[in-house]
Amino acid sequence: MTYLDEHAEQVSQAAERVRSHVRRTPVLTTDLDPDLRLKPECFQVTGSFKPRGAFNAVLSLVDGGARPAGVIAVSSGNHAQAVALAAATVGLAALILIPEDANPAKVAATRALGAEVIQEGITFANREQRLREVMAERGFTLVHPFDDWNVIHGQGTAARELLEDEPDLDVVAAPVGGGGLLAGTAISSKRHNAKLKVVGVEPAAADDAYRTWKAGRIQVLASSPRTLADGVRTTAIGARNFEVMFEHRLVDEIVTVTEDEIAGAVQVAWSRMHLALEPTGALPLAAKLYGKLPRGRAGLILSGGNANLQTVATLLAPR
Amino acid sequence: MTYLDEHAEQVSQAAERVRSHVRRTPVLTTDLDPDLRLKPECFQVTGSFKPRGAFNAVLSLVDGGARPAGVIAVSSGNHAQAVALAAATVGLAALILIPEDANPAKVAATRALGAEVIQEGITFANREQRLREVMAERGFTLVHPFDDWNVIHGQGTAARELLEDEPDLDVVAAPVGGGGLLAGTAISSKRHNAKLKVVGVEPAAADDAYRTWKAGRIQVLASSPRTLADGVRTTAIGARNFEVMFEHRLVDEIVTVTEDEIAGAVQVAWSRMHLALEPTGALPLAAKLYGKLPRGRAGLILSGGNANLQTVATLLAPR
Repeated sequence: MTYLDEHAEQVSQAAERVRSHVRRTPVLTTDLDPDLRLKPECFQVTGSFKPRGAFNAVLSLVDGGARPAGVIAVSSGNHAQAVALAAATVGLAALILIPEDANPAKVAATRALGAEVIQEGITFANREQRLREVMAERGFTLVHPFDDWNVIHGQGTAARELLEDEPDLDVVAAPVGGGGLLAGTAISSKRHNAKLKVVGVEPAAADDAYRTWKAGRIQVLASSPRTLADGVRTTAIGARNFEVMFEHRLVDEIVTVTEDEIAGAVQVAWSRMHLALEPTGALPLAAKLYGKLPRGRAGLILSGGNANLQTVATLLAPR
Repeated sequence: MTYLDEHAEQVSQAAERVRSHVRRTPVLTTDLDPDLRLKPECFQVTGSFKPRGAFNAVLSLVDGGARPAGVIAVSSGNHAQAVALAAATVGLAALILIPEDANPAKVAATRALGAEVIQEGITFANREQRLREVMAERGFTLVHPFDDWNVIHGQGTAARELLEDEPDLDVVAAPVGGGGLLAGTAISSKRHNAKLKVVGVEPAAADDAYRTWKAGRIQVLASSPRTLADGVRTTAIGARNFEVMFEHRLVDEIVTVTEDEIAGAVQVAWSRMHLALEPTGALPLAAKLYGKLPRGRAGLILSGGNANLQTVATLLAPR
């Protein structure tokens, strides 16, 4: 078995494992371009693709027999809700570290799913260290947001479904932050068709994946970048993600989009496609609209819809 | 054949006729309520359900052999774009009368689809009279927005698809303005299951269908109502629509929702379901959220997504 075959097999197993817990989101066509296909993960459980990986990781832990005391995650966003839901589903305790300045609505949503949330003294900068401390105290098992094989294989189920429904795509594009979604997408896409172009899209303001691709080794941003696309503010991709994406060359290209292009894509998603996307979810659409994707039939993985309404209101009708 | 069988047969024929021109929209589930099913017609061609009826009407005209000089419609909204597209598809001229105060974006969209637009001197009040004059001058054939059997049968294809995908619903709800969508929905729903409850939802500010249902004869509003739900500002339902809905009792109930409830539903659609609905499209959701639908598994026909972005921005983040 090749590297790709092995990982693709793991994605198939993930698809089986998570089937009864996540939604098979539809594939949409649009009035914009007959060659465009959308995989709107905003309609996924909790409003983003994240439960695909979180359920695969948590179910794998439990199925493995060594039932942990609980699971722990660090996230201010979609991964928090996904881990909270997956843990609650299998009856495990979940502890989520959320930076103090996070959106209160997301904190409330995470608590509503039954997770314990710690915010006091947590900052974007110290969160990794605080995580290690709390893990040691409680004996909980980490569900990493991207640098984890089960998470990567779970995220790969979105592209797998897309290509089952639309086998003749030439290009598949997905956002890239830590690289969980993009690595999983690359595995499913290259297994489906080695000639399919796999493209990662990131904000120009957070171009570590682009520079990593160019340099051939992991590049780290000095600090968490400011971008509308708050789902991809990680400072570097993970080691496993690097291995899949660049060492094994399963990703063809990383492209970057400006903040104005992201804002434009959110507005087009709303007004022409009627999808309420979060800015991160609109990254692949921004790449498509502003001519940054290779030619051909393109499938876009629109990763989520959990936007701050005030931000989006301003994007829709600037004052 | 009963009245219902006859009309349901016409809906089946409409489904066949329009199949290659309209989209089969998906059925969505949500995190809000496991018993809820959504039929998001915002993803339909042109962003609303209207092409179902417009294509059925225009294709029936052309198939009938007596090819008209062109087609004509009066609309400031979704029907205009639908008729323009259907006419362009079969190579017929289309002339659309749009009131002078209409949204310029919708006028531009209608022109972009190849239709001739007349706005000069057209008001909401005089538009019917101007229509008759222009029809006489040009010899064009009217495509009525709701009081037309081909339009009603075309609109019925949405509920038909919903019930093919989700056969076990207890309730189907749709917005009601002139009654084209609701009459078609009622035909498909009652043919599927006579016990299925069919509910029309309208703004309390435009409650002519509610009063018509109570009175047992068509009630007419004194003037076009002011409501966020600008797709249902018609002053009365049509004669054919009355026949289906109330004379033959294929609609069980009309419920009304307040402007605040409509605004609340638009916000929930955005933030919890990630659907960019126009206020009219959110009417059935408002009825569901505010406890106005009968109990049971409910399918909501969310009629469209062509909202004024400024209005929606204000609904999402009030200042």
